[in-house]
Amino acid sequence: MSDYLTSHRLFYDAVETGDADLMASLWVDDADTSCVHPGATPLRGTAQVLRSWTVLMANVGYIQFFLTDVEVTTFPRGADEPTTAVVSCTENILSGEGLSAEAFSGGKLVCTSILVKEPGGWKFWSRHASPIAELHIEDEDSA
Amino acid sequence: MSDYLTSHRLFYDAVETGDADLMASLWVDDADTSCVHPGATPLRGTAQVLRSWTVLMANVGYIQFFLTDVEVTTFPRGADEPTTAVVSCTENILSGEGLSAEAFSGGKLVCTSILVKEPGGWKFWSRHASPIAELHIEDEDSA
Repeated sequence: MSDYLTSHRLFYDAVETGDADLMASLWVDDADTSCVHPGATPLRGTAQVLRSWTVLMANVGYIQFFLTDVEVTTFPRGADEPTTAVVSCTENILSGEGLSAEAFSGGKLVCTSILVKEPGGWKFWSRHASPIAELHIEDEDSA
Repeated sequence: MSDYLTSHRLFYDAVETGDADLMASLWVDDADTSCVHPGATPLRGTAQVLRSWTVLMANVGYIQFFLTDVEVTTFPRGADEPTTAVVSCTENILSGEGLSAEAFSGGKLVCTSILVKEPGGWKFWSRHASPIAELHIEDEDSA
């Protein structure tokens, strides 16, 4: 597995196991990082982002992520040694009681994450997750 | 205004004026581009993305975007000539009748766009827009 996908997977491991130290190790430490939780406005800065995850993880009894539709693009495009990776996926979530059930909006989210290559490995720069509603923009499979 | 912010603004001009040609000129032409409309699953590939915008624009009588909280990060970070720009903003939307009112989820969205530098200028690679709900993850301004 490529290094950015390893970091991407470790992120979910951190949430599933409630490992705040692992979570902290996966983010660039910067005032401009950002995280959009489902239905929320962006959180800015790693301290605020990590605090939100600590609160979420403290309120989740059980949670497990099944990722589907994982798509990756690296930048600069075509470069042998990319510096940035954009990972999008669908998060299919099983969760127990607590805040998570509502916060995660019914168990299915679409997420776009941006990871950057740091001296210490691939780290999250931003994450944008949103609920999948019943309403869909017209999207015919065949025209 | 920096070139990526010019392209970012032209995107909204295209929607506001229903200019499908302008919209098409602003996207990288690739099978891996993506667009997440509010509440929807990702659309993949520029043909599908542009078709969705054509449908949206055809169904919007009047629409105007007021952007707030615009934040930009360029990659590689610190580079004099960045190749990728991530622009996040809040879209405050005034719209008339038609599909838009529901599709745009009450007039306030948070959006993360990724633009890349192409020979023809800065183009959209992906866009992820999501509704802002009443539910918010705990976010204390002071701890």
